[in-house]
Amino acid sequence: MTGYLGPKGTFSHIAATEFCEGEELTEYATIYSAIMAVENGEIDACIVPIENSIEGSVNTTLDTLTHETGLFITGEYILRIKQNLIVKKGIKAEDIKTVISHPQAIGQCARLLNSKFKNVKILFADSTARAAESVIAGDGTVATIASENCAELNNLEILIHDCGDEQNNATRFVKLEKEKISGNKTSIAFTLENRSGALYNAISVFHDFDINMIKIESRPLKTGLGAYTFFIDIDGDGEDENIKSALESLKKNIKSLRVLGSYEKYEEI
Amino acid sequence: MTGYLGPKGTFSHIAATEFCEGEELTEYATIYSAIMAVENGEIDACIVPIENSIEGSVNTTLDTLTHETGLFITGEYILRIKQNLIVKKGIKAEDIKTVISHPQAIGQCARLLNSKFKNVKILFADSTARAAESVIAGDGTVATIASENCAELNNLEILIHDCGDEQNNATRFVKLEKEKISGNKTSIAFTLENRSGALYNAISVFHDFDINMIKIESRPLKTGLGAYTFFIDIDGDGEDENIKSALESLKKNIKSLRVLGSYEKYEEI
Repeated sequence: MTGYLGPKGTFSHIAATEFCEGEELTEYATIYSAIMAVENGEIDACIVPIENSIEGSVNTTLDTLTHETGLFITGEYILRIKQNLIVKKGIKAEDIKTVISHPQAIGQCARLLNSKFKNVKILFADSTARAAESVIAGDGTVATIASENCAELNNLEILIHDCGDEQNNATRFVKLEKEKISGNKTSIAFTLENRSGALYNAISVFHDFDINMIKIESRPLKTGLGAYTFFIDIDGDGEDENIKSALESLKKNIKSLRVLGSYEKYEEI
Repeated sequence: MTGYLGPKGTFSHIAATEFCEGEELTEYATIYSAIMAVENGEIDACIVPIENSIEGSVNTTLDTLTHETGLFITGEYILRIKQNLIVKKGIKAEDIKTVISHPQAIGQCARLLNSKFKNVKILFADSTARAAESVIAGDGTVATIASENCAELNNLEILIHDCGDEQNNATRFVKLEKEKISGNKTSIAFTLENRSGALYNAISVFHDFDINMIKIESRPLKTGLGAYTFFIDIDGDGEDENIKSALESLKKNIKSLRVLGSYEKYEEI
């Protein structure tokens, strides 16, 4: 059983369906509850968003995975995000008085809303699927911004297809499980001593061991401004001898280390 | 005239009032519109949040400042964020059926809501001030999570003081203006060529010139996953000879550089 952030019709649901073909899926109300259900042994795995090309990291995923569980990343999947302006059948653009959606979906269509729908009222919902319910319940003047699936599932009409401001909108999802596996990509998280040159010393290790860093991201520790957890993705398997030596060397330069898992890099087919 | 993210009673309003004593303030509906009003010469300056100790960077501020304006940071101010559970006067905890607030305020009190208010309905509003209007309009079963100011301004009662999950909740605000100034802290933003070791080479420059990095943050470029803008804060003034030489050397190792400004580091009194 694999958990995802529901309800049906969200991009998380689409990603879970495409990535976990054949697996039985079960929906959760929040990313936090989906991850903790794996940690508590209620389900075998979950699929959660970890990074969006426009919004950046998904903080809940990074923080919960790192600080509240011992789970491992065992796979990744990249989904191209296409937002659509969705209405009741037969409704025209000039009829719209309210647009309701998840704040992220609203944000991703800010330019469209600021230009063509300047006088329309914007409301927030906790998911695009929940927003669709408001469109259905409404009098036809309410529109939402959501996936094609959401329109189909709710028997609604797409007024403007692929209406997001940025063409390169993609979200990276990860699969989390209790047991670690092997793969050609490894994710780690670490914290540093608060002293000058600490980050330089940490990053130097990867340079010295000739390991390619794919990504670096910093997230504030909840202990206050100025202290960070660093998330680094590197090429190679965590059990590879060179990487094991590098991580041993890294430990001497940092405060704490957590290997988040090795898995196969997503390759577009 | 100095702009801030309104309406009155938000933490942005409190920060603007405390930081810009004596200046005339004017409210804007979004961070984007407050920043662009300075860029377009409508107002002299704005105060916007740039980083929270729990949520991380404020993406709109970083992206708008860096990619859509030529403005400079001319000051910073750190405000301790205290959330409060706010109700109509005389209402008790057991009366509450709905909690409405900004998603960030809800997120900052997630543990409280998950424990003591498990069966309460959670609704999102686009600001805590707007949420307060729902409390006023409601039948007494609606609560909000917001600042003390918000309770005072709206003649509401604080049921639980300082109810956030984390005690170290603080937001860093910056002042943006057209002309750059001097100061003991400098913020820069840069992008890298997409090749192995690029980040290491960039960071090495600060090490070689003996410049202390206070903070490093990465944000995805909107051109897709895998490309980032790096935001680095360093000790010292941008016009200092050693820093000028370091930035010249940095330019040889990166794709593009924008000096976001020098200003006085915030010191708690």
